[in-house]
Parts: sequence; structure tokens; C-alpha cells
Amino acid sequence: MSNVHNFSAGPCILPQEVFEKSAQAILNFNDIGLSILEISHRSKDFVAVMDEARAIVKRLMKLGDDYEVLYLGGGASLQFLMVPFNLLKTKAAYLDTGTWAAGAIKEAKMVGEIDIIASSKADNYAYIPKDYEVRSEYDYFHCTSNNTIYGTQMKSFPKVDTLMVCDMSSDIFSRDIDFSQFDLIYAGAQKNMGPAGVTLVVVKKSILGKTDRVIPSYLNYQQHIDKESMLNTPPVFPVYASLLTLQHLEKNGGIAAAEQRNISKAHLLYDEIDRNPNFETFCRAEDRSLMNISFKLTDESKKDAFDAAWKAAGISGLNGHRSLGGYRASMYNAMPIESVQVLVDVMSSLK
Amino acid sequence: MSNVHNFSAGPCILPQEVFEKSAQAILNFNDIGLSILEISHRSKDFVAVMDEARAIVKRLMKLGDDYEVLYLGGGASLQFLMVPFNLLKTKAAYLDTGTWAAGAIKEAKMVGEIDIIASSKADNYAYIPKDYEVRSEYDYFHCTSNNTIYGTQMKSFPKVDTLMVCDMSSDIFSRDIDFSQFDLIYAGAQKNMGPAGVTLVVVKKSILGKTDRVIPSYLNYQQHIDKESMLNTPPVFPVYASLLTLQHLEKNGGIAAAEQRNISKAHLLYDEIDRNPNFETFCRAEDRSLMNISFKLTDESKKDAFDAAWKAAGISGLNGHRSLGGYRASMYNAMPIESVQVLVDVMSSLK
Repeated sequence: MSNVHNFSAGPCILPQEVFEKSAQAILNFNDIGLSILEISHRSKDFVAVMDEARAIVKRLMKLGDDYEVLYLGGGASLQFLMVPFNLLKTKAAYLDTGTWAAGAIKEAKMVGEIDIIASSKADNYAYIPKDYEVRSEYDYFHCTSNNTIYGTQMKSFPKVDTLMVCDMSSDIFSRDIDFSQFDLIYAGAQKNMGPAGVTLVVVKKSILGKTDRVIPSYLNYQQHIDKESMLNTPPVFPVYASLLTLQHLEKNGGIAAAEQRNISKAHLLYDEIDRNPNFETFCRAEDRSLMNISFKLTDESKKDAFDAAWKAAGISGLNGHRSLGGYRASMYNAMPIESVQVLVDVMSSLK
Repeated sequence: MSNVHNFSAGPCILPQEVFEKSAQAILNFNDIGLSILEISHRSKDFVAVMDEARAIVKRLMKLGDDYEVLYLGGGASLQFLMVPFNLLKTKAAYLDTGTWAAGAIKEAKMVGEIDIIASSKADNYAYIPKDYEVRSEYDYFHCTSNNTIYGTQMKSFPKVDTLMVCDMSSDIFSRDIDFSQFDLIYAGAQKNMGPAGVTLVVVKKSILGKTDRVIPSYLNYQQHIDKESMLNTPPVFPVYASLLTLQHLEKNGGIAAAEQRNISKAHLLYDEIDRNPNFETFCRAEDRSLMNISFKLTDESKKDAFDAAWKAAGISGLNGHRSLGGYRASMYNAMPIESVQVLVDVMSSLK
């Protein structure tokens, strides 16, 4: 597999060790003579997986017992709905930084009243709005830490007078931030922490149970917490592969070391874009993402030559999102800097 | 793995071919040099998987273009909520045949008005109620085709004057019935059709869009249909492993052949229970399930000897559900009759 450089925006590259160990677990899990695909989720072998998968998140994020960790189905899209169902009483504040933030806003509006307190939509989401204030009248503030399509990322988070909820689907575990500033974090696993099919939720227990709303069981965080993330049959294999991914991260220096690698990879590519007159990014320099670098040709007539060159180099998944066009290099935790160098070499060779 | 006889109630045994092919796809999917865990769900290789996974269900069920097939996250438990969200206008009728039926009833009550038109709860769900009528005043009738815990199964389905919705999680694809009598079928994959982490929904298109309710996006069947089951990132690997499972079924004679094998396996074990004074079932004979045989010792003092014997024979997953006790032999499609014979031999040897 070493000849393919996978820049896919997600599902995306994972550590080779995760592929090898999860393939082995499908043939014979824990040497018990059964496949991970056929064991009961109530078996001691899988309960141990779920327990450790929940515990490792708190270790990596340096969070205490006031937080709970859940692995749920339905994707981050279902969290767009579960967050307001569980937290919205009167009114919530949303920051509109792109397609996924807009998706979260759309679902929340079906549950109750929300204010979009800042938006960069009029500039096609080319920057992260910073000039806003979140007052205590809001039940919570919702933001999206990284915007895969536009290649923007929140470099810091506001001080707010209410709860802070963050969709970290596309940059979770990529940088060393103070996770305790958030009251609820959610993330589809399929970028930095595993394969598609499971969604991480990290929630501060004390914020739950404050609305009078009747919350259906699957949408109710407290019910999932009460059942230790096994309210119903969990997505067993995606949880296991996520645990393998996080164990690989922990063994390799944790989040701080991953951040250093991510900075090196991003600088390598941004330096080439800034140096090379053939390329430019879509977004403002100060909001550039370390995860997804969206860029375009300055001269569209070179498209055929560039496309042929990166494909010949074994690069995969570089096309930009259909809504924006151009190119997108997604460089999640598992992306080796050698693959970024291959892309930079192709770019620098373009006449 | 041939030395373990896996009678787990689900997640459960799957064909060995599914384990081998899915492990290979994790190392190198379709020989493209990438893992099934790292490819985009929008890649042509995965779109082909989803298209075929949807098509094979209609072939196996002999359903036409008036039905749509979806693969969703969240488990059958989320369907307990999605069904009333999409179909309940005034009042729905539910048949209460066990724990999962009761779960569906609980969620539906949070959405609107429902009537439990028949229940065997007072007899600890030892039979399937048959003496009821479903009139046209109901928006739909909901039933559970097989009850894993109590070992009961609906042998036929009522003629109803409204829509019929069925939770087939534990016996889907196990017997040759007329699937067109149902307007909506749902099933968690983790019994007869794949690993945990994905739920099948088969829905007749014409029944949707009839309520005035605002339906959040992820809960809205029509939105999933409009996006060909990719409204958001689907559970890629569970969908792929489900396709492999259904391909294995199709290659081996389809549902009709599976039913014959399931009848043979069930008769082998029921005959032993009926012959052997040491054992008895929990439920009435006429409602006995072909999938899950729940039974108990007539003399509890033989428990230690029996437990030691089946464990020594390599049998796994035979303990009954915690709510009922005793034993439960789950014999889904992939269970070989040789494993049932091992259990019967152990039972017949008990003094």
C-alpha cells in the first residue's frame, strides 16, 4: 500500500498498524478463536474494548471524571440534532463557518430558537469570524473547529458566558488544546480517530438534565451514559478500530507530538503554495487549517497537466469538494510527511 | 476457528467467507492499494458497494421499484423512533411480544398516540398473541417478527387494513415469506446479515410524506432516499461486510435454501428438548422460533454439570438473556448444523 498517497478528506488514511491489527481481529480476535465481527457486545472481551476506548479519550484529552465519553451511531449529523434536544431550553448561539456548521444550524432550528451570532457565508466561508460576543442569555454556543471544505480552522476559541459545544469531526486529536474549555465535544470518527460508522461524544455530566423536553431514548445522552455507551448494540468493529487508532496515537507521543508532525506537514505544503505562482489557497492566511489545505490553480489551463502529474505520482483523493472545486490535500494525523513531500514535488515541477 | 461453536444471540456467527474477504479488504480493498477503512464513501469503489448492497436486498426479497433500501446508523433502537416520526399521524397499533416490541412502543409513545392491541406480557411473553384485529383507523401496525429473548416467532402475519411495519432484526433473510405484505421493514444487521453498526430499512416509497410533522434530517427516510443512503458518511465497513454476507446467501440458494437449513437445525434441537426430560422450552410449542431456542433445565441441580459439559465441547454464547435466565441457542443463517449436533450430543449425554 506504500505506493498510494491517500489525501482523502474522510474517511481517510489511518495508521498501517490499525489495518493490520483490525484485519487480524476479524480472523481471530484476542486469540479466542472468534472474529471481532461475531462476538457479543456483552462479552468480556468487547466490554474491555469499550471501557478502554472510553478511558483513553479522557487520558489523551486530560479530562477528569466530570466528563463522560460515548461512542454512538448515526454520525456527527445525528449530533446536530442531539445537541439541541439535550441542551436547548430558550435560545442557543451558533457560529456559521461552513457547510457543516450550517447543517448543525438547520437541525437545531427544528428543535428551538437559535441565533447565528456570526457568519462568513457572504465571503464563501473564506475566514473564521472573530468579532462576536456570546452572552449568558444563550443556553450554549456551538462552533465547528475545522472546516474541511474551505480549509479553515479556529485557532482559538472564545471566552463565553455559557456552555461551549464544538463539532471537532475533522481536527480532533490533531492539536494540543485545553479540552476542558468545552462542555460537549463531538466528532465523527472517520478522520483522525478511526473508520466511518461511529461518533465520539465527550460531555460534561453536569450540563445534562436541565431541559423539560421529553428526549427519546437514543437521542438522550444521559441514557447512553447510564448504560456505559451500550444502550443498544454499539458499532462493535468501528469502536475497536477507533481504539486501535487512539492507542497508536498514545504510543507515539499523544496529541502534542501529533500536533508537531501536523505543523511540519502543513508548513511544507503552505510554503510551496506561497512560493509557487501556479497555486493559491481559497481562504485567508490567518485561518489556514493544519488538516485540510484547499487550493486552486491560478491558471486553469494547467489543470490537465497538473492532474496527470499527481495521479502519476500515486496521489489519491486530491480533488476539492464538489461545492468549491480546485484541490484539497487532507493531511490527518496518519498522513506521513513523505506523502506531502511527493505532492510538493509534483507542484514544484509544474511549469 | 472451527473448534468454537458460537451460539451468540447477536452480534453472532457469520459465514467464514465474510471474515476472510473483509479482512482482506482491510489490507487491500479491490486491489486498489487502499484499505476499505480509508477510502472515501464517495469513491467509485464504495459507491458500487452501496449500490449493490441496496440492490441485492430487493433481489433476495423479490421486491420491485416501489421499495427503497437504506443502510443507516444508530441501530434498530433508532428505528423505534424514526418509524413514528415518519408515519404517525393520529394513532398507531403495536403488538407487544417482548422486550424489543416494548422498546418500540416506549419510543413511539414519545411521538404520538399508540394502542397496544395485543400483548403476552402477563405470561412473560411465552406466546405470540393472535386474537386481534387491526382496523383502518390506525396509521400503521407495528410488529416484531422474532423475539430473541423468549424464543418466539410470528409464523404468519395478520391481514391489516392499514400499513404494516415489522422489526425483523433477529430473523430477516431466514425464511421465505412474502415481503411485499410489509410497507416498512427494519433490522439491525448483526444477526443474519452482517456485523453490528448498520441497520437495514426497506420502505415502500408511497407511504412517506403523509404527515405534517417537521422531521429532522437524519430521522427523515425521504432525505436518506434522496441521497441514495449517503445523506451523511455511512458506516462504510459494516455496509461492506453486510454486502459480503448477502452475497454469500445469494450464492448458496437464497432465502428459500437458508430456510430449509434453518428448519433442519431447529428441528434437531427441538426434538432433543422434547425427547430429553432434563430440558424444556420457555414458550408455547406453536410459537417456537427457528432462530433462537430458549430453554432451561428441569432440575437446576444439574446446572454445574451441564455448563461444564457444553463449555468443554467448545460451545460459546449459550447463556440465556439476563432477564430470563436458562439457556439460549441462537442458530442464525451462518450456524452450521454440525455445531447444533455438538450441542445436542452434550444435552443427550447429560445424566
